Amino acid sequence: MPKGNDALCKAVIGVDVGNTRLTAAIVTLDGDMKAMLRRPTRASEGANACYRQIEEMLLALLSEAERQSIAILGIGVGFGGPVDHESGTIIRSHHVLGWSGFPMRQMLSDRFGIPVFLDNDANAGALGELLFGAAKGQKNVLYVNIGTGIGGAIIADGRLLRGERNLAGEIGHITVVRGGPRCGCGKHGCLEAVASGTGIARRAMELIRKGELRTKLPTDGVTSKDVFEAAMDGDELAIKVVDETVEHLAHGLGIAITLLNPSMVIIGGGLSEAPEELLLNPLNERLKRYAFDVALEGLKLVNAKLRYDAGVLGAAALAIVGGEMNYG
Amino acid sequence: MPKGNDALCKAVIGVDVGNTRLTAAIVTLDGDMKAMLRRPTRASEGANACYRQIEEMLLALLSEAERQSIAILGIGVGFGGPVDHESGTIIRSHHVLGWSGFPMRQMLSDRFGIPVFLDNDANAGALGELLFGAAKGQKNVLYVNIGTGIGGAIIADGRLLRGERNLAGEIGHITVVRGGPRCGCGKHGCLEAVASGTGIARRAMELIRKGELRTKLPTDGVTSKDVFEAAMDGDELAIKVVDETVEHLAHGLGIAITLLNPSMVIIGGGLSEAPEELLLNPLNERLKRYAFDVALEGLKLVNAKLRYDAGVLGAAALAIVGGEMNYG
Repeated sequence: MPKGNDALCKAVIGVDVGNTRLTAAIVTLDGDMKAMLRRPTRASEGANACYRQIEEMLLALLSEAERQSIAILGIGVGFGGPVDHESGTIIRSHHVLGWSGFPMRQMLSDRFGIPVFLDNDANAGALGELLFGAAKGQKNVLYVNIGTGIGGAIIADGRLLRGERNLAGEIGHITVVRGGPRCGCGKHGCLEAVASGTGIARRAMELIRKGELRTKLPTDGVTSKDVFEAAMDGDELAIKVVDETVEHLAHGLGIAITLLNPSMVIIGGGLSEAPEELLLNPLNERLKRYAFDVALEGLKLVNAKLRYDAGVLGAAALAIVGGEMNYG
Repeated sequence: MPKGNDALCKAVIGVDVGNTRLTAAIVTLDGDMKAMLRRPTRASEGANACYRQIEEMLLALLSEAERQSIAILGIGVGFGGPVDHESGTIIRSHHVLGWSGFPMRQMLSDRFGIPVFLDNDANAGALGELLFGAAKGQKNVLYVNIGTGIGGAIIADGRLLRGERNLAGEIGHITVVRGGPRCGCGKHGCLEAVASGTGIARRAMELIRKGELRTKLPTDGVTSKDVFEAAMDGDELAIKVVDETVEHLAHGLGIAITLLNPSMVIIGGGLSEAPEELLLNPLNERLKRYAFDVALEGLKLVNAKLRYDAGVLGAAALAIVGGEMNYG
């Protein structure tokens, strides 16, 4: 997006509302971060306290923008849970009490008189990669965020695919193991239940308790990071868990590739930090088992480019794309 | 689309190129069929002979259109196999030699001087239901054609979702049974391998050969229609096969619903003729096991409304939607 040639630099503010931390930043239309604030989320105090934190951070950034002669064109809010994008209302949060039905967009735009755009963090992450990251120039992208859970977003023909109620892209809840372990959503064998960080750790603990495979992993609790590190060291049990993870992910991604025919699949979230020789490379190979062959031709499987700042840059992207018609 | 108020009635010609028959019809912009021709496909004589058949049928319909004072605005061709929609070229056919790389759009538009639109039959079927059938007024639709194979098409926000190379929607080739029976595509456990007409008949034959379940089905060959009829009569083996079919379809559709969040799922093809109490109703119930709960809220699962003429009406819809900008 070309900058106008008036003296003011044009930017938006992105706000990433996570379960454990709030991040807000001034981001120019081409992705430069001009200022950033990060706070632990006062989750235990409920939605109203969190909202007041967000307001305070925005006030601070708006005065910083004025100091730097930056014009703020919009505010984008990426929320870690389902939202009604059209009305700008939060649908629910599993972690913070009181967010259900919270009219975030209305509250913020009434307070600050600036256009506000609200979406879930997966959609924000996908748009962030599209504007500033790995997906620049792509038109058909599947974005999969693998952390404690698995979220996803679909870009089709250059635009977010929202579905009827902004619920599209929930690749974490497609069934890959019929009758498999129970997922947080209530169903069984969801991709999230077996291949998220939580799912990986749970499967590892099950194998450790069985005691059939050689391992140096502790018996009193492991994380998915522990599992990948042990696998790098040649740990037999960890290697098995990682191999099964690759199989589950190949199945889930293969299904999505067959249905959506993207040109690129982006892995974001914690698991994108796993060594490529353990995850990305074998996954790329294993996709052949599950994806329609012609849809694999030319497909790129890559890790997200935006790492630590993905959330806030994605939130900024929401405001940039949302306001595309209006900004010069 | 409003009709112009000049004397000529406005219409398109739809051509459905199937493996066993060719159908072409004059269809008005609101879906009235003014004339129709149907011929067995001269498949054994190769693509050039089939193409000549198509030309002859078009010539006959164009003179019929003149006789009826109908203006033909475009020609839509629905093809039973993958096509490059943008270049208007056929990618391949498993049934007729010589179709690979055939420049259908160019040939027909050079010959007749009318805009031509080419797409696969699943996309055509979905647009047919959107314009003239069950999906009127819907914006997010999953269309699944279950016949000898399983094809699919996705309408997202009112438009066909094509993906990067017009391959999106291939729900027949998502894996629902890991390590399951080999599919025609080379992979294992595709939805098509277990839940198409062919897949249903194959599973029934396997059970008949095993001889463990009571059945009146013949041992020398059955069709999926035989299986549904026997199940209606209370045949133990047939009931088991139908129940497994419902489970496989619920899994496949549940995955697609979770990823795409449509407002409507339409079942077309031969299986949409199966008794609703055996297929559609139990399927609707079983979806809860596989679809993300919030994506199921308000979802309609219905049989296609266009039956015998679905192919040719869909092909006509390709020309109507494709030429939307140009027609008055």
